[in-house]
Amino acid sequence: MAQYTPPLRDMQFLLHELLNVVDELKQLPAHAEIDADTINAVLEEGGKFAAQVTAPLNQIGDQEGCKLDKSTHEVTTPKGFKEAYVQYVDGGWPSLSCDPEYGGQGLPHVLNQCFYEMLNSANQAWTMYPGLSHGAYEALHAHGTPEQKKLYLPKLTSGQWTGTMCLTESHCGTDLGLLRTKAEPQADGSYKLTGNKIFISAGEHDMAENIVHLVLARLPDAPAGSKGISLFVVPKYNVMPDGKIGSRNGIYCGGLEHKMGIHGNATAQIVLEEANGTLVGEPNKGLAAMFVMMNAARLGVGMQGLGLTEVAYQNAVAYARDRIQMRSLSGVKAPDKPADPIIVHPDVRKMLLTARAYAEGGRALGIWTTLMLDKELSSTDEEERRDAADFVALVTPIVKAFLTDNAWISTSHCLQVFGGHGYIAEWGMEQFVRDARINMIYEGTNTIQSLDLLGRKILADNGAKLKKFGKFVRDFVEEEGTNEAMQEFVNPLADIGEKVTKLTTELGMKSLQNPDEVGAAAVDYLRVCGHLVFAYLWARMAKVALAKLDSGDPFYKAKLHTARFYFAKLLPETATLIRTARAGAKPMMDIEESLF
Amino acid sequence: MAQYTPPLRDMQFLLHELLNVVDELKQLPAHAEIDADTINAVLEEGGKFAAQVTAPLNQIGDQEGCKLDKSTHEVTTPKGFKEAYVQYVDGGWPSLSCDPEYGGQGLPHVLNQCFYEMLNSANQAWTMYPGLSHGAYEALHAHGTPEQKKLYLPKLTSGQWTGTMCLTESHCGTDLGLLRTKAEPQADGSYKLTGNKIFISAGEHDMAENIVHLVLARLPDAPAGSKGISLFVVPKYNVMPDGKIGSRNGIYCGGLEHKMGIHGNATAQIVLEEANGTLVGEPNKGLAAMFVMMNAARLGVGMQGLGLTEVAYQNAVAYARDRIQMRSLSGVKAPDKPADPIIVHPDVRKMLLTARAYAEGGRALGIWTTLMLDKELSSTDEEERRDAADFVALVTPIVKAFLTDNAWISTSHCLQVFGGHGYIAEWGMEQFVRDARINMIYEGTNTIQSLDLLGRKILADNGAKLKKFGKFVRDFVEEEGTNEAMQEFVNPLADIGEKVTKLTTELGMKSLQNPDEVGAAAVDYLRVCGHLVFAYLWARMAKVALAKLDSGDPFYKAKLHTARFYFAKLLPETATLIRTARAGAKPMMDIEESLF
Repeated sequence: MAQYTPPLRDMQFLLHELLNVVDELKQLPAHAEIDADTINAVLEEGGKFAAQVTAPLNQIGDQEGCKLDKSTHEVTTPKGFKEAYVQYVDGGWPSLSCDPEYGGQGLPHVLNQCFYEMLNSANQAWTMYPGLSHGAYEALHAHGTPEQKKLYLPKLTSGQWTGTMCLTESHCGTDLGLLRTKAEPQADGSYKLTGNKIFISAGEHDMAENIVHLVLARLPDAPAGSKGISLFVVPKYNVMPDGKIGSRNGIYCGGLEHKMGIHGNATAQIVLEEANGTLVGEPNKGLAAMFVMMNAARLGVGMQGLGLTEVAYQNAVAYARDRIQMRSLSGVKAPDKPADPIIVHPDVRKMLLTARAYAEGGRALGIWTTLMLDKELSSTDEEERRDAADFVALVTPIVKAFLTDNAWISTSHCLQVFGGHGYIAEWGMEQFVRDARINMIYEGTNTIQSLDLLGRKILADNGAKLKKFGKFVRDFVEEEGTNEAMQEFVNPLADIGEKVTKLTTELGMKSLQNPDEVGAAAVDYLRVCGHLVFAYLWARMAKVALAKLDSGDPFYKAKLHTARFYFAKLLPETATLIRTARAGAKPMMDIEESLF
Repeated sequence: MAQYTPPLRDMQFLLHELLNVVDELKQLPAHAEIDADTINAVLEEGGKFAAQVTAPLNQIGDQEGCKLDKSTHEVTTPKGFKEAYVQYVDGGWPSLSCDPEYGGQGLPHVLNQCFYEMLNSANQAWTMYPGLSHGAYEALHAHGTPEQKKLYLPKLTSGQWTGTMCLTESHCGTDLGLLRTKAEPQADGSYKLTGNKIFISAGEHDMAENIVHLVLARLPDAPAGSKGISLFVVPKYNVMPDGKIGSRNGIYCGGLEHKMGIHGNATAQIVLEEANGTLVGEPNKGLAAMFVMMNAARLGVGMQGLGLTEVAYQNAVAYARDRIQMRSLSGVKAPDKPADPIIVHPDVRKMLLTARAYAEGGRALGIWTTLMLDKELSSTDEEERRDAADFVALVTPIVKAFLTDNAWISTSHCLQVFGGHGYIAEWGMEQFVRDARINMIYEGTNTIQSLDLLGRKILADNGAKLKKFGKFVRDFVEEEGTNEAMQEFVNPLADIGEKVTKLTTELGMKSLQNPDEVGAAAVDYLRVCGHLVFAYLWARMAKVALAKLDSGDPFYKAKLHTARFYFAKLLPETATLIRTARAGAKPMMDIEESLF
């Protein structure tokens, strides 16, 4: 079975040594009381919960999966899932970063983010139950009526109830404008919803007494397409005005999907038969309301990728130290053994360090992004709020797509370190790969993320958000321009920064001639941007590590080596990506469809 | 469920229009009678078998898996597997390229190769039963005693019995020198074998009346390491001198592995308890004898990758034509529908064409390689035999590693085309990905392949084999140097050819200083060589397609477009690979092990 140790030291490095989150957060009135000890204590406890409570359930969840009783429409989650959720609720974990007005602890999002990374390392399938719940909380918090907030937010905050996002239908995933679920207005101002949803994660289960479904549907007079979609809250059990649970509502699980991975999470087909619902936000503005949830979910999916990258790395390192096989090409390293541990082989190290550099870079980006999210949500300075919002908007598709693609690469490498044993269920490595695959698809495929980045976030505002990000890079390059020891990091960073600027301008020009040029280049472009962000963060991490190298703490030595590995072996991927992005749409679009 | 159509037209193009296999084969006395009609007829029938008999069993094989009865040690294969095997034997398929002396049809290997591609597209797990059998046939044919050949080859040729390769033990996969299974000589010249093997594909099943295990073991006086390994034939049922089946031998299945994929194939733990065996080849030279089987198996694994790439492509194209979602960025393409089919989107096409270019390039390489194998085995000209053998030796690790890595990339892309539906078992796409993952591991991991290529096949003979290959490239570049229409293909081909030469020299020099430089660069280097071979083949295919473009057959137009896609979007991967190969061992080896 796979092992997991929460990476607390690396989190502390990022929080306190790289990003100084305490100083930053203290400037926000909502977090004026935060201190490092609180942060560290919460993370230590959170890490214990992940490592001791949910991690041991990861493999059994994969093997057992969820079971649907077709007669009652009730789903049984794998052994131990329910009990772990009780512990989660009893520990107050659901309320960590929730609004104190509804019973939340009001801790910063950056803390919740670190906690979720650990939960995802431990057990992605389990974590999706509270994860989606938190998304429903966010959407209701932002767009719910006072009545809805009063009824639902305290229960979602405490974890007594969970939530879902019901968007997809069998004929529409990416293109929600095609959806058909109908909402008929009732005399009392409520609605009756009828339709079929699919791929509803955490859509039905036995872990909480009620499930709060947020459902996209159409009003009878709704315009066609995405401008005619409204958002509704549709609980599994109707909720009485006093908050008590009432009769069973007409929304139920019609089937569960058999999936490649995340077996422990119930991916439900949800049937609505005149289910009672109430409108969230404005009529026909459901997509906008849903995007609050979606953006949070996209950051959350990035954290799933990060979590899997980290846990796969930890297990592969342990195996590579333990497994002896062949001798080092440069001479015997373990003469007392019949062969050397495979960690002596350069390519094994390359696979390990790829995962490590992607994990540590992804963690830095995740923490930086959610620190910015805390500023966006809580700063009293309008400009700071706007800048932070621009930053979060820009990097959200990068966090989602780059981190999940990296997780696919990394978990596969870590499986490979195990050789044939990696392919066997017993070791747990192949589950990480299978679980990782969904993260590139849901909450908007990674292609959709790339179109969001290049088309909407960058070209549509003439690169304004990107320029703001570029300033971080330029300032750092300038600052370190005369620091001899930093040249190995600053020079390639400056180089990739210039290349991104040039490439962006070029793609902007080409897209004016032919919008398909955006679609053709976007995926490559997003990875180039991902590397720009990572190169910046790795350079900054290297700076801190260099400054503390003399401390004797081997942590800094390791950090510096991993930074060097990143610049030598991973950043060069951009050489290919820039070429293929520039090769444009012609190689794909010149071919008549009939010739495929 | 996934669909499959045998790619007969593309095979015919490669066999008859690109490589002129009939003319080439006719020069070999063993194949003097071959003609195009025979080849085409065999492939058509073979394709029918794959598409109609084994393809429909692929999904059920995955779902059911194999079952071991622990009391009898007997394995039941999934529903329909046994019946399909009966049809396979009745159709004479096992004997296709076997020696007529033992009842084979003596057809060229290049034909068998095409047939196996189709079998692997249809059902990799099923195909491994006859595939491993054929490997055992090859090893006994090359190294068996006359007695062993007489007893076993006719039954392996007819398919009445199947065979396996028993190499791996739990503590040694790559490093067979560590193996512990013992063989005690008996008074009658036979041996009693005792030990435990794992990961034995097709190791136990209900499809044939006997299983001929080829087992690596140590003689009592054997030197330590890989120089003390001998090869034995150990049948499941003892074989009487008259060829009849005798008593049950002490070799049985102790357990089955739960794997990520290829569930339909029994991956057996094999226990030997004083099992009767006879020596194959010389004592302590077992590894050399096993390598006959291993080299054939490595080409076979490449074909597994190719087969999965092709079938994943076919299904993804069909889905991309059928699924409507969003509008094209460059304007509505299907005004009569509520959305455009997703094949209008550039990135969907990019994913599809990646799989297609890898499938068609891999098919060209597979056919070329086995044509060379036929020459190696059957030419009457010693130099031609040696040249062909050098070619096959050089490209075998490329076929194995490049084609299986490409299959991992391609099947994952094709899954992605399906969005969420790709993650659901029902559509069959995720099975292709899971099945594809093992091909990068078994018969020598892809890292081992790359070390074999760079270390043994290239640097150890001072690049002699590579130079011979380089001559193909130079001759073609020279030949087409003045052909205006071919410049778009010939120029990048010449460029990558020069770069490979330069990189090889550089790595050769570096490796003299530090052998770890080989291990650090080998994986990147192999992919660069793979692209060199593909660029050469794609340029040649483009030449044929250009010449026949006016024929009106849309096949040539599609081929030319795919060639252009390859050069524009896939070959540029070498830009990164050359950089990372040159970045050397330092970024991995400078880090002390304790810092991981």
